[in-house]
Amino acid sequence: MGRIAILGGTGPEGLGLGMRLTLAGEEVVIGSRRPERAARVAEEGSERLRSVGCTRRLLGAENGRTIAGADLIVLSFPYSGVRELLPQLAAVLAGKVILDLVNPLVLEKRVFRTAPLPAGSAGEEIQSILSESQVVSGFKNQSAEELRNIEKALRGDVVVCGDHPEATARVLQLIARIPRVRGVDAGALVNARSLEAITALLLNLNRRHRAITSIEILGLPPS
Amino acid sequence: MGRIAILGGTGPEGLGLGMRLTLAGEEVVIGSRRPERAARVAEEGSERLRSVGCTRRLLGAENGRTIAGADLIVLSFPYSGVRELLPQLAAVLAGKVILDLVNPLVLEKRVFRTAPLPAGSAGEEIQSILSESQVVSGFKNQSAEELRNIEKALRGDVVVCGDHPEATARVLQLIARIPRVRGVDAGALVNARSLEAITALLLNLNRRHRAITSIEILGLPPS
Repeated sequence: MGRIAILGGTGPEGLGLGMRLTLAGEEVVIGSRRPERAARVAEEGSERLRSVGCTRRLLGAENGRTIAGADLIVLSFPYSGVRELLPQLAAVLAGKVILDLVNPLVLEKRVFRTAPLPAGSAGEEIQSILSESQVVSGFKNQSAEELRNIEKALRGDVVVCGDHPEATARVLQLIARIPRVRGVDAGALVNARSLEAITALLLNLNRRHRAITSIEILGLPPS
Repeated sequence: MGRIAILGGTGPEGLGLGMRLTLAGEEVVIGSRRPERAARVAEEGSERLRSVGCTRRLLGAENGRTIAGADLIVLSFPYSGVRELLPQLAAVLAGKVILDLVNPLVLEKRVFRTAPLPAGSAGEEIQSILSESQVVSGFKNQSAEELRNIEKALRGDVVVCGDHPEATARVLQLIARIPRVRGVDAGALVNARSLEAITALLLNLNRRHRAITSIEILGLPPS
């Protein structure tokens, strides 16, 4: 498979996923608006990878430049980036598989909730902006802290959804390469609403119980 | 503790929970608009209970009549009942703990999604109608089929939320009496949005994977 670009990949979640995917044997480029920041964070990630015996390196580049050689583009920026960054990238992202990690959350009175969006979810909004791309929502419920902690296996299921089955299959193949992680296909992209709502719930549980929580789906047939 | 009334308790979910709570030692009255139907379904439930060696019986009565002697009222009817049934019961439900099981779901193009509600969730809408009651949302993610299957332990966590901590504690105490079930306190009632969204996700997973799914929260400290 081709290279993976992580837009907004210098944040803890993007870097964490980037390291996990590099460990799984993928070629990953971390993107940032500032190329020197991308390079620095990629170097940090590569050092972390070396510390667990992985000699493969993360690369870093300016967001737009990461896209050219990549066939799977991960969106790992705050929700504000959906409107600020994506419209101008729509043409260059046409035809690509997009993995959307975005959670549109707000904190009100110390409680997390999803921001009400006309599209229903960030995943659906991204698909409507990137109408020529194939959007898959996934990894929305994985905490940055767990993703970054590459010494430990990732906990909890990775539930994915999207309206382009081949793209969903591509992402599920990718997930299968990460040790001991189960990808769960929820079907249509409208399920992104549920995945984003689950993130709000998990953050509220984390706060209340001083924990880092994740979810597991019980009752699925063995794959 | 006092008697538990289950409004709309003749549906499979209400009856299932009613049997589970009777097994746990509670006195439960099943309510219906039609008292003869309530009596018949309560009798069916009592027979099921006898078949697993429980001699305690379910009672049945007209919805309004079940409330008088009860201190905990379970709402187990379709979402339409929230607007049709609750406003006229607000006065008699004042001061009571309300356990809300309602999931406001719609099926569009063979995919479940939550109905968009001005209040944000059925739980919040119920609290605003029953402003003198203490609403706790819970058991939203338990399938009727699993609740009814009293030969088997209930699978998955029961996540609850509400804005009245004493009422939430009362419901968690109740859950603790059901064998091998863990109650998880998510805090504020706004989390009902997430619980209802999870139900939509689980139903889509059930359909897609021909399964009966539930969720477990990983990472919580031992209680």
